[in-house]
Amino acid sequence: MQIKDIVIIGSGNLATNLVPALYKAGKNIVCLYSRTIANAKILAVQCNAKYTDIIEEVPKNADLYIIAVDDKSIKEISEKINDVKGIIVHTSGSISMNVLSSGIKNFGVFYPLMTFSKLNTVSFHNIPICLEANSSRVNIALYKLAKSISKTVVEISSENRKLLHLAAVFACNFTNLNYSIAEDLLEKNQLSFDLLMPLIRITADKVQNGKPSELQTGPAFREEFGVMNEQSDELMDLPEYKEMYDLLSKLIISIKHKND
Amino acid sequence: MQIKDIVIIGSGNLATNLVPALYKAGKNIVCLYSRTIANAKILAVQCNAKYTDIIEEVPKNADLYIIAVDDKSIKEISEKINDVKGIIVHTSGSISMNVLSSGIKNFGVFYPLMTFSKLNTVSFHNIPICLEANSSRVNIALYKLAKSISKTVVEISSENRKLLHLAAVFACNFTNLNYSIAEDLLEKNQLSFDLLMPLIRITADKVQNGKPSELQTGPAFREEFGVMNEQSDELMDLPEYKEMYDLLSKLIISIKHKND
Repeated sequence: MQIKDIVIIGSGNLATNLVPALYKAGKNIVCLYSRTIANAKILAVQCNAKYTDIIEEVPKNADLYIIAVDDKSIKEISEKINDVKGIIVHTSGSISMNVLSSGIKNFGVFYPLMTFSKLNTVSFHNIPICLEANSSRVNIALYKLAKSISKTVVEISSENRKLLHLAAVFACNFTNLNYSIAEDLLEKNQLSFDLLMPLIRITADKVQNGKPSELQTGPAFREEFGVMNEQSDELMDLPEYKEMYDLLSKLIISIKHKND
Repeated sequence: MQIKDIVIIGSGNLATNLVPALYKAGKNIVCLYSRTIANAKILAVQCNAKYTDIIEEVPKNADLYIIAVDDKSIKEISEKINDVKGIIVHTSGSISMNVLSSGIKNFGVFYPLMTFSKLNTVSFHNIPICLEANSSRVNIALYKLAKSISKTVVEISSENRKLLHLAAVFACNFTNLNYSIAEDLLEKNQLSFDLLMPLIRITADKVQNGKPSELQTGPAFREEFGVMNEQSDELMDLPEYKEMYDLLSKLIISIKHKND
């Protein structure tokens, strides 16, 4: 079982980042399918692939079908191509592998743990790829493929993948929400968000070599209740931010004392 | 008004990072005061300074006195040295400059916008220093000093400094809380926190060149209520995390629709 010819289903953020990586690794993208034909075309020209918006036109004889669509469309799409010989994988953090089991022989999950956007395409080399497979043959084939584009490839069960995805929501999506609120607070007062850049960078850098649970700082961690009350009061006119400030400050203190 | 001879009051995280930066910039640290004499000594040997734990022994003729102690001790300390000729500054994000006004002639604020720890000392070159002064003469002297250690020096009022500090709590302290919760969720399930490192780094990198409010991703932003309910349920046994997950998800959606 060797993966050479690949079909990509989808043309969103993940596909936009994954296609060039696979192409550079010498894989043959034989076809790109997307409901949005214009997007499929943009990607197809980058890798000399055919493209289509008709699912029945997707070739049946590829080695791998990568479903990179939104979570709620995975099952439906997979059932439309369940007569192919090759491996079918989805790429979602939060969907079980077994959503693919209906009538498909070889299947798995190929989940790159990263946030993707179309504008800033990123190198796959440093992105952990989390694999799951319905057989060891499929597993070996996916592992080889993943290793050709990333240095970090791990096998992870559906259950643990969901947990990893949840942890990523905290580490990435909620972190960006924090950046976003900081930006909003500064903009409302004609202060430049750029002033926070060094702090944001250092905060992320520090956990690359240390445990975040041992790196907590700030008024809540120091239990400076005077400062906390004043900061909470400053958010009086922004009740959603205030609620968040109060809750997260409380949580920092609670975690600090968990092991007392 | 020129600043050459400097007294440092305090030996905590900030002093530990600031002293070597000033010393390297050719400033003369004439004395280090700390209630904890051992800490003062550690810093003093790095810059050939005297050190003491007796406030009355602090020399009266220095050009600048930098108070780098916890917020609640600033006023008390400043009143003990209010008979000196030189400028007295505090270094806090959340305390008004005027806390120093009682009997002091030349005073201001010297607030480096960064999170400091004793273990990882950081270069001051990229750290924004926020200044406030009670006269333009003091302002010019502080500006020159700040510029000798950092490329970014800004004048900021007490009110705006407090706001900047509040924004920093979101961008740094709350962000680290998110990292910490992610770490905890993974450790509880024997998964390595290292898997999130590339994601954490990219999330911080992206806002260096883009607006976080335009970079939000994740289940809440995509309004995938099925995924959100499942993730919230996964936190059933961790009610504090669940409360935070629900609140922040709600907030992401609310911000998304703010400009509808």
